[in-house]
Amino acid sequence: MEIYEQLTAQGDKVRSLKTAKADKADVDAAIQLLLKLKVDYKEVTGQDYKAGCPPSGTAVSNDRQSENGGEEDTVDPWNVATNSAKGVDYDKLIVRFGSSKIDQELVDRIEKVSGQKAHRFLRRGIFFSHRDMNQVLDAYEKQKSFYLYTGRGPSSQAMHVGHLIPFVFTKWLQDVFDIPLVIQLTDDEKYLWKDLSLEDCHRFAEENAKDIIACGFDVNKTFIFSDLDYMGSSPEFYRNVVKVQKHVTFNQVKGIFGFSDSDCIGKISFPAIQAAPAFSSSFPQIFKGRKDVQCLIPCAIDQDPYFRMTRDVAPRIGYPKPALLHSTFFPALQGAQTKMSASDANSSIFLTDTPKQIKNKVNKHAFSGGKDTIEEHREQGGNPDIDVAFMYLTFFMEDDEQLEKIRQDYTSGALLTGELKKMLIETLQPMITAHQENRKNVTDEMVKQFMTPRPLNFNF
Amino acid sequence: MEIYEQLTAQGDKVRSLKTAKADKADVDAAIQLLLKLKVDYKEVTGQDYKAGCPPSGTAVSNDRQSENGGEEDTVDPWNVATNSAKGVDYDKLIVRFGSSKIDQELVDRIEKVSGQKAHRFLRRGIFFSHRDMNQVLDAYEKQKSFYLYTGRGPSSQAMHVGHLIPFVFTKWLQDVFDIPLVIQLTDDEKYLWKDLSLEDCHRFAEENAKDIIACGFDVNKTFIFSDLDYMGSSPEFYRNVVKVQKHVTFNQVKGIFGFSDSDCIGKISFPAIQAAPAFSSSFPQIFKGRKDVQCLIPCAIDQDPYFRMTRDVAPRIGYPKPALLHSTFFPALQGAQTKMSASDANSSIFLTDTPKQIKNKVNKHAFSGGKDTIEEHREQGGNPDIDVAFMYLTFFMEDDEQLEKIRQDYTSGALLTGELKKMLIETLQPMITAHQENRKNVTDEMVKQFMTPRPLNFNF
Repeated sequence: MEIYEQLTAQGDKVRSLKTAKADKADVDAAIQLLLKLKVDYKEVTGQDYKAGCPPSGTAVSNDRQSENGGEEDTVDPWNVATNSAKGVDYDKLIVRFGSSKIDQELVDRIEKVSGQKAHRFLRRGIFFSHRDMNQVLDAYEKQKSFYLYTGRGPSSQAMHVGHLIPFVFTKWLQDVFDIPLVIQLTDDEKYLWKDLSLEDCHRFAEENAKDIIACGFDVNKTFIFSDLDYMGSSPEFYRNVVKVQKHVTFNQVKGIFGFSDSDCIGKISFPAIQAAPAFSSSFPQIFKGRKDVQCLIPCAIDQDPYFRMTRDVAPRIGYPKPALLHSTFFPALQGAQTKMSASDANSSIFLTDTPKQIKNKVNKHAFSGGKDTIEEHREQGGNPDIDVAFMYLTFFMEDDEQLEKIRQDYTSGALLTGELKKMLIETLQPMITAHQENRKNVTDEMVKQFMTPRPLNFNF
Repeated sequence: MEIYEQLTAQGDKVRSLKTAKADKADVDAAIQLLLKLKVDYKEVTGQDYKAGCPPSGTAVSNDRQSENGGEEDTVDPWNVATNSAKGVDYDKLIVRFGSSKIDQELVDRIEKVSGQKAHRFLRRGIFFSHRDMNQVLDAYEKQKSFYLYTGRGPSSQAMHVGHLIPFVFTKWLQDVFDIPLVIQLTDDEKYLWKDLSLEDCHRFAEENAKDIIACGFDVNKTFIFSDLDYMGSSPEFYRNVVKVQKHVTFNQVKGIFGFSDSDCIGKISFPAIQAAPAFSSSFPQIFKGRKDVQCLIPCAIDQDPYFRMTRDVAPRIGYPKPALLHSTFFPALQGAQTKMSASDANSSIFLTDTPKQIKNKVNKHAFSGGKDTIEEHREQGGNPDIDVAFMYLTFFMEDDEQLEKIRQDYTSGALLTGELKKMLIETLQPMITAHQENRKNVTDEMVKQFMTPRPLNFNF
């Protein structure tokens, strides 16, 4: 009963922090405590905690419970949280969001059309969901090109490895399909949502651009833009923003994003700014004024609400609907219950971490699926499904056979947690060092080139 | 009782038209009928109509009544309506809006500081209300310059004489104080509110710019801009828009403008776009990046809600509050109960009307304060306070003594309605013809010059 009361109080605290739009780190910390209390509660009572049902009562309600208090995962552009150590239930999310699963057939087709082996993110279900990808491939087979659009919210100078996922995959898509790419840095959004100055948000955008460029993008095929700059440089972009803004009501964004009457009008109208780059006429310098070039958006699934809205509006303003490829979330070191957070240094491997920091963080903070003692582990084996070091390897280890062997050895107990972590450390260290080398070579001049509105090396 | 029921039904109709954001012409027509019914009602019952109080009941309620159904005038950026043939009660409006009256002392001071005779609009109380005008004059006396900002919503190609009022007065202010002027054409607003294409709204902006330029503005001192163009040409303008959008909530715009949850997000965020030009940093090409240059906004009082919001936000984002000079409304030919409407050809004298059209419209449609027969008129005299021809002369006749004599003669009955109308016709005809001549000389090249972001002939 005591835990029950603690849980109820903590649930209230989470809700009030969210309502008050508190710092993400604070909210996440409160959620972590909430989840921990729930585990304790279940251990003590043998029941799942249900808000409003004290432990003595019989659980009868099957309703959706209070936020993060029930079976349903929370996934929106600002919050990702789940009770399960395996992470969000992505199959359920596909049903809830109404998207389609990327099945083996689609992976095979992408290989066939591109003539390249599928990227490990496709082979391993890291990009797991899509909208209209078959349509994009149909058109591509008929020589109809498309373009890629992805982005990032520059909330700080620091990026972590999870932030690279969409860019690594987008680079692969660009390479195999040979198509233009636009990358939106939503510095205006970060100004509206965070307690930051416009100048800081814009500076973070330029700093983040360096990390993005360091992924190896081709300046002749890629346009990176800050909203604060590009909105004021392109009448066509603003025209598309206004078109979207005319066709979406407050009721709709309230339903989609959970905005309330006390939100500022900037937040309320922002979704149109994330929608506009999905229309080729927003980039006349690239597409020569054509408004019918299909857009494909690779992004984490939490961004889908923006693009559900975009797809809803598109036909009403005479544009094709953008297609989408959705990725899973990159788990925090502490476990897959939530995304990594840029505001908590220990939840993430940062792109600026030294080899030593990487080693320490993985060894100290990466949640293990192994057993408490070596004897137990050898006997019963570890659980790779909840082991963060193993999860990270599925993101970054290229060799499928090697990865499968690790999985088997860890499951059997042949591989110990320390050994698994060592493998991850040895994968991450050279990767991050190489990234840091690449980033060092990105000059301010190069950033300026990438961020200047200009034609790209494509004929439209 | 029959009229009472008609009135109740008509009141409901007006409300439902407004809720449905119906065409302004339809709403105005419905309001006109509503007002007419109220007059009929009072004639028959000897009482004012009160919603919810049938004629048999004793009138006890003194509450504010349903829109246009009570004593309170309706004045917001989209609707102006009153029961009184004399027009809106402007003294009450000053109290309601919390602005200050332009009294004789302030008029005298403007004359003293500018060294010029006050404009007839000031002498005659057409600009009747202000915010912080004394502060502007204090600073000007200490060699601290300011700038002017006014604007227009380009909802059609057709402008009528009423639309010129702010521009005529602004030109005078610019001449006597020798200061920069920025003129905003809110083509984005018209797209959001009306059933018009972006292209049409932008074309109307350029056409309206010609009529504005024809008022005689100096291209070296004046910048005219379309929102659709300038937003996409000035990162500084967009930065100020976002700053305002961060500091205004939906609750606030709901309170100020009456927006509802079913309004599009473009409308909800638009007020920030009308606010931004009140900050000098929105025009770095003119003010060399200075953000402290005081702004003075001459406008009709119905635009005040935008600038109340702007003044509320200004100190929170580090900018000076804009000062304001408010004008009364230019009455429709049919009477001062409402503004002229660009969508009803017979309610207005258009800038494109021929001398013959002017004559016919004035003779046929201008509401008269005269008596029904010449005999009665000679005996009892006319009422200039409700006579539209006389009202128009107060706007356009320069000579005070001549105007005063007309007033006396009309009041005494010496001057007949036909004679009064003839004087107005003879004032309007050469004025409109001259405007048409001026407009003919405005080339597309000149429009382009005025609308190009550039430095003006001032040192900041």
